[in-house]
Amino acid sequence: MSNNELSNLKQRLREFTEARDWDQFHSPKNLCMALSAEVAEITEHFQWLTEEQSQNIPAKKLKEVESELADTFIYLVRLADKLNVDLLKVAEEKIDVNEKRYPVEKAKGNAIKYTQLDE
Amino acid sequence: MSNNELSNLKQRLREFTEARDWDQFHSPKNLCMALSAEVAEITEHFQWLTEEQSQNIPAKKLKEVESELADTFIYLVRLADKLNVDLLKVAEEKIDVNEKRYPVEKAKGNAIKYTQLDE
Amino acid sequence: MSNNELSNLKQRLREFTEARDWDQFHSPKNLCMALSAEVAEITEHFQWLTEEQSQNIPAKKLKEVESELADTFIYLVRLADKLNVDLLKVAEEKIDVNEKRYPVEKAKGNAIKYTQLDE
Amino acid sequence: MSNNELSNLKQRLREFTEARDWDQFHSPKNLCMALSAEVAEITEHFQWLTEEQSQNIPAKKLKEVESELADTFIYLVRLADKLNVDLLKVAEEKIDVNEKRYPVEKAKGNAIKYTQLDE
Repeated sequence: MSNNELSNLKQRLREFTEARDWDQFHSPKNLCMALSAEVAEITEHFQWLTEEQSQNIPAKKLKEVESELADTFIYLVRLADKLNVDLLKVAEEKIDVNEKRYPVEKAKGNAIKYTQLDE
Repeated sequence: MSNNELSNLKQRLREFTEARDWDQFHSPKNLCMALSAEVAEITEHFQWLTEEQSQNIPAKKLKEVESELADTFIYLVRLADKLNVDLLKVAEEKIDVNEKRYPVEKAKGNAIKYTQLDE
Repeated sequence: MSNNELSNLKQRLREFTEARDWDQFHSPKNLCMALSAEVAEITEHFQWLTEEQSQNIPAKKLKEVESELADTFIYLVRLADKLNVDLLKVAEEKIDVNEKRYPVEKAKGNAIKYTQLDE
Repeated sequence: MSNNELSNLKQRLREFTEARDWDQFHSPKNLCMALSAEVAEITEHFQWLTEEQSQNIPAKKLKEVESELADTFIYLVRLADKLNVDLLKVAEEKIDVNEKRYPVEKAKGNAIKYTQLDE
């Protein structure tokens, strides 16, 4: 694999989709719905667990969660591709922003939204 | 940047979280909720658009969607990290599975779920 | 049935939950996750359909959607109950607010969010 | 108010929508997306809270959650209306089903899905 892990995945998903003539279904609107449905399948695994239980799920359940994480990632990569968005780039930029929004000395140990940090 | 784009991002997010002592909030259960809330912020941008409109959104709106895609990606990487799941690996494995589930000759041009392909 | 349809449903769900000793799982946080997972099961039915197709779904599919609408409603009623919120009252109040936010003459025929109506 | 609380709400929402010529946006597909976005706004309030904290949220936060519960209910009623589904009826029927799926003696105190109760 080259050093462009995400580009490779994106490319493979393009070819998978085109071979099946599924691009007609992959509007950003539809992919967004598919993405949200996959995240909910992760949610189903965690909804009745305590936070602590969610940190120690049995191997069988973890296998199922892995499968839903994979689907979520796949639809996210597809959606970004259809919108010509570079996921890695926007994520890195967002962390840059968050480092300023949530300076360590103010944000340490609390989960207050940045807009309320000065209240 | 090394040839491990996702590992780098994962590592940067770990450091960001630890510096702010936010790991206490990042149980898989909580990260799953945060992930679903971010996906919904993408949904808000597309909910009243036609599929066609969703393929041609204005630059200003695209900027906003990029920001939500970034947040979604960030929480997905965090969630996978907390569960010790290799996102790239499980995604590639899932595509392997899907290539068998949806053989080109059967799946071409229809969006029928694989369990119903033989009905 | 009395003239308090929603109160009756709320009461029936309380009894169902208590008989099974499930109240321990029904924190607002957990019910919120369950609610979002049920909505996603509706989403799964519509994600690959066009808007037009979504208006004319076959009887068999409609039966399945009905079942997910029921689950969604049930968790919404439970969540509101645990928070002591009167769903009907807050919905009616919200429509009062929306009637002012979206005056007919300005909102007619467009889906612009109220905060942008004067831009 | 008559003894048909939900019918009244449904009717009021119809009139609200028609007066603004918004019915064109209210396909089941779009309403489903709007519903999921509103549920996520509830999620945002609970995502970093412990289960216990979610049971005792401050009055100001509760007001905000009420507003999101109202929006969720409104879109659920709209979606059911567009599909000609009687929410109360399907919810009552679903509870009938669940009473059989989850007999008290087997389900008491555990959150195992009914398909696994006999395993």
